[in-house]
Amino acid sequence: MPEFFNVLPPDEARTLLFQHLTAVLPAETIATQAALGRVTAVPLAAPHPLPQFQRSTMDGYAVRASDTHGATESLPAFLQVIAEVPMGQAANLSLQPGQAAIVHTGGMIPDTADAVVPVEHTQVMGEQFSVNGKQYAAIDGQPPIAAFPFEIEIFKAVAAGQHVLQIGEDVAQNAEVLPAGHILKPQDLGGLLALGIWQLLVARQPQVGILATGDEVIPPEQTAGPGQIRDINSYTIAGMVQKAGGIPKLGGIIPDRLAALQTAAAHMLSACDMLVLSAGSSVSLRDMTVQVIDSLGSPGVLLHGVATRPGKPTIVGAVNGKPVLGLPGNPVSAMVQFDMFGVPAIYRLQGVQTMPRQGVVWARLSQNIASESGREDYVPARLEDGPDGLVATPVFGKSNLIYTLVHADGLIKVPLNKGGVMAGAWVEVRFF
Amino acid sequence: MPEFFNVLPPDEARTLLFQHLTAVLPAETIATQAALGRVTAVPLAAPHPLPQFQRSTMDGYAVRASDTHGATESLPAFLQVIAEVPMGQAANLSLQPGQAAIVHTGGMIPDTADAVVPVEHTQVMGEQFSVNGKQYAAIDGQPPIAAFPFEIEIFKAVAAGQHVLQIGEDVAQNAEVLPAGHILKPQDLGGLLALGIWQLLVARQPQVGILATGDEVIPPEQTAGPGQIRDINSYTIAGMVQKAGGIPKLGGIIPDRLAALQTAAAHMLSACDMLVLSAGSSVSLRDMTVQVIDSLGSPGVLLHGVATRPGKPTIVGAVNGKPVLGLPGNPVSAMVQFDMFGVPAIYRLQGVQTMPRQGVVWARLSQNIASESGREDYVPARLEDGPDGLVATPVFGKSNLIYTLVHADGLIKVPLNKGGVMAGAWVEVRFF
Repeated sequence: MPEFFNVLPPDEARTLLFQHLTAVLPAETIATQAALGRVTAVPLAAPHPLPQFQRSTMDGYAVRASDTHGATESLPAFLQVIAEVPMGQAANLSLQPGQAAIVHTGGMIPDTADAVVPVEHTQVMGEQFSVNGKQYAAIDGQPPIAAFPFEIEIFKAVAAGQHVLQIGEDVAQNAEVLPAGHILKPQDLGGLLALGIWQLLVARQPQVGILATGDEVIPPEQTAGPGQIRDINSYTIAGMVQKAGGIPKLGGIIPDRLAALQTAAAHMLSACDMLVLSAGSSVSLRDMTVQVIDSLGSPGVLLHGVATRPGKPTIVGAVNGKPVLGLPGNPVSAMVQFDMFGVPAIYRLQGVQTMPRQGVVWARLSQNIASESGREDYVPARLEDGPDGLVATPVFGKSNLIYTLVHADGLIKVPLNKGGVMAGAWVEVRFF
Repeated sequence: MPEFFNVLPPDEARTLLFQHLTAVLPAETIATQAALGRVTAVPLAAPHPLPQFQRSTMDGYAVRASDTHGATESLPAFLQVIAEVPMGQAANLSLQPGQAAIVHTGGMIPDTADAVVPVEHTQVMGEQFSVNGKQYAAIDGQPPIAAFPFEIEIFKAVAAGQHVLQIGEDVAQNAEVLPAGHILKPQDLGGLLALGIWQLLVARQPQVGILATGDEVIPPEQTAGPGQIRDINSYTIAGMVQKAGGIPKLGGIIPDRLAALQTAAAHMLSACDMLVLSAGSSVSLRDMTVQVIDSLGSPGVLLHGVATRPGKPTIVGAVNGKPVLGLPGNPVSAMVQFDMFGVPAIYRLQGVQTMPRQGVVWARLSQNIASESGREDYVPARLEDGPDGLVATPVFGKSNLIYTLVHADGLIKVPLNKGGVMAGAWVEVRFF
């Protein structure tokens, strides 16, 4: 225990924890389409530009823009349509001045064209068929057969580049498309696959060992006798681990004896990347948790207490680069504290530097909240729509009551150096 | 096609779709600890109160509060400690006036006690040991053995009920703890397990069939020739399906021929609870998608076009109670439209009535956005912290560019009847 601070503010406590962690877990190669929620292990660059060819953004005619200059409803331009560029094929044709080619949305534009005239600004001269949105000139009243060349009128001029996606307009070749440490969203998978990056290096998912203690704690499937309660924390923490991209490993309920807890903790820590002890809530069990964490290796306990409510008696430690947390026994404190240290640690072990923003919103407070300066308070709250944004209404309840959190949408953060927050103020709410 | 509206606003379009859906998929029983993100199929009630016994919230002494009245530092009350209530056991003892019992945080309080005096407000009379936070009277200087009775001084009075959780304070017996249609969060699992509800009925996860079309579209692992692009939409949509609690079933890329698409769509629809056609983006393919959806069964296409940008040419349909969507080919439109219809439909098929709030925040707009009245616009944006909340900065980009979304944190919603939004206004942003 090289550094011992009785109570630290949460930001400093987290920084202290992060200093003692292994930088990032080893990477593994997986299929991009299976990588939702995983974290990139290396920066990724575009092997080729996107798009790789000039693409039309409309159904219509590829043209030389200069051929359409001055065209209006009353004074249309006339062009000869010489061919159609089929979808998925190269536009191997050369447009001479006065010529055009049928193109479809997403189709390739000939090199010699520089713009697309949408079909709704054109009219085929003479008899015509329109089949499945393609226009054809009529030949002897027979079923539609493309008859090139045919003539069209153009009622609206286009500028060079209009209705055309340029090569590399989405991504330039060799551009970095994603940094390392990025949590992959659905669009990221699409962006990578568009570039042919169908497998990639991601950080291994952290395995998080969870041990419950407390002579009063029994498994949820058992009937509770007088003085007994069912294990809650193993399962709430496991759910939070899953949501953060980790893999929970439940080690069950360990008797309140130092040797038993030491053995179970040492075994779990060697098998996992992180260890969580959901301690019983009595002083004696907190002391035992400190002893156990210190016995596991170096540096052991980093701090014993965080300046927050709920959750002050949280034990934050690290052993051989792995985070080890001793959470308070009561379920609200345990979840709030795991959100504060465990969830960021899971992301950090995967190389995430900036914690995901998704979980945090701002809302107007509907009633005053008292707090003590020098302590960060987290107050469960419901969220509702208001006239100028979200409104947060505190759900007051003791931190022993799990249903306080069941009935809340999130936690209001009352900053460290505020002696409370007044109704009407904007507050940060973390979805929970 | 009993109802045909050319273009509907999104809310009306969604309502129309929901009217044609099967109410809720059949339920299945699963283990509560495996139910994260699943949706309750029936309301759940508490089989017993929580807590089931009076619990101490502190380490200290269970007392009759009246015995402590008037106690101060200078004029302490004196009580006889007659026993300890061990953790996890019944408090089978009767306190007479003037008596107290050692209790630990979370331990049971004797029926005859009505409050707990925290240990820090007490002092054991005479010599004492303190071991693992428990206080003992000394007996002949021997190792600590609990020696009852012993006497304590109490320096602070407690009121009846102080530091005690009452029976049913968290949840009363028979109270509804969760309604049907509730998406299960980590704390919900904990709350259910605390009540011994270790398995429960949840809606089956919707299977969502996804078919891509377009002669220009190739699988992501292939090299794209001139005019070809890799499939993006199958994978972005699959990721969104997963995030909403559905199971994506990828059917690959179907040739642009009516018969082939009809066969593949009919097969996929019969095997799944929902069907998504990621159409090619040309007019002819949109028309083909309409034909295919109408051929699948009744009612078929409900509407062909939604008053939004991006994504107007979206086809919304239903067949035999199953949603069938024809998405625009370009990737940004496809994702925005799937978020608008597909994601709510996945929740709805599981019985969710109120869509999850988690994804929506309010932010101040950093620059003007133009829009057309009568259309709902969704503008990709980055989010950053500002002085009074989040600041949204639009990422302008054509809806064909997937990296517009890769670089965005969410989508700004420009309401239907606004002709744009001015910088400084509060806007709704949907995380994406």
